[in-house]
Amino acid sequence: VDVASDTRERLIRTTGRLLRKRGYAATGLNQIMAEAEAPKGSMYFHFPGGKEELAAAAVDKFAGAIAKQLRAGLERQATVAEAVTGFFDDYVAYMERTEFGDGCAVATVALDEAATHELLGAAADRAFRSWVDLLTDALVAEGHDHDSAHRVASLVIAAIEGAIVMSKGRHSTEPLSSARDALRPLLERQSA
Amino acid sequence: VDVASDTRERLIRTTGRLLRKRGYAATGLNQIMAEAEAPKGSMYFHFPGGKEELAAAAVDKFAGAIAKQLRAGLERQATVAEAVTGFFDDYVAYMERTEFGDGCAVATVALDEAATHELLGAAADRAFRSWVDLLTDALVAEGHDHDSAHRVASLVIAAIEGAIVMSKGRHSTEPLSSARDALRPLLERQSA
Repeated sequence: VDVASDTRERLIRTTGRLLRKRGYAATGLNQIMAEAEAPKGSMYFHFPGGKEELAAAAVDKFAGAIAKQLRAGLERQATVAEAVTGFFDDYVAYMERTEFGDGCAVATVALDEAATHELLGAAADRAFRSWVDLLTDALVAEGHDHDSAHRVASLVIAAIEGAIVMSKGRHSTEPLSSARDALRPLLERQSA
Repeated sequence: VDVASDTRERLIRTTGRLLRKRGYAATGLNQIMAEAEAPKGSMYFHFPGGKEELAAAAVDKFAGAIAKQLRAGLERQATVAEAVTGFFDDYVAYMERTEFGDGCAVATVALDEAATHELLGAAADRAFRSWVDLLTDALVAEGHDHDSAHRVASLVIAAIEGAIVMSKGRHSTEPLSSARDALRPLLERQSA
């Protein structure tokens, strides 16, 4: 077992979970160390840049996981519209499973820290871009012209992020299902 | 001058500004007191429930200001589509003016605290509902059926919230203008 890289992974995973739950400011280094059962000193060994560097790694990891999920949905479903619907439904299930306690690790970081923490702003931007690009390409493959595909893809990601925020306040997934259904006409296949 | 209510207003205004900038967890009571130039003891005199009660009041105030702005736009513009476009453009200007340092006071609170702070979750929910209801009514007046008007209105609010989050990471208002333009077809007047 590669103990060092194992610790590194545990630190990233724990940080991601805490970011989803409470955001950057409320996530303390001591709590990360304790929950990750990380040996003293391991934190700055793996992340010389401290909490910000660790959080940026957690955002990148979360972004990669969501991109994988998006890509799998686009491959599995017959149309982009169905894949996007499925993605919203996954988030409906996720919010219910976590009793609205979790959110999007990227959004919490972007909202509170992007303006003052350069690494975190850049990580959030990479995440959003990667998701928008995936959806843009899929829409272009269904006959949308590139610019309009990009706008719709960007709207889809914005809508999911915003609907998660609204769902948390209401303790209801209705904002997610409303956004999902309202988006549908914009996602129709354009080619024959 | 009613000094007491003046202090109360300053506390609410200062808290709203700090929530927009950095969220709930990173906003400290000492900082609120200092920036509001509030006399010692005035905080618990006006807000016996402490920071949470004060933040809920700030969310309500912010929600009211946005509702007023939405209502004014809907009255001033010829169509809902133009009013929504104008609302996005106001946010484009706002993000540029604050150099992406500010966001939505409701979103920061909803994202980080709704699950654990009941007062804040309820305040966030009231805010989102009031904006969605305003837009729903305006769309119904333009011939949309109620359920579909509600879904589109909810999508518009989610899209603004999400696009603000994306804009902060990127230090660019492009996510706001993309969402604005992509939404347009859904907002077309349905009656003759």
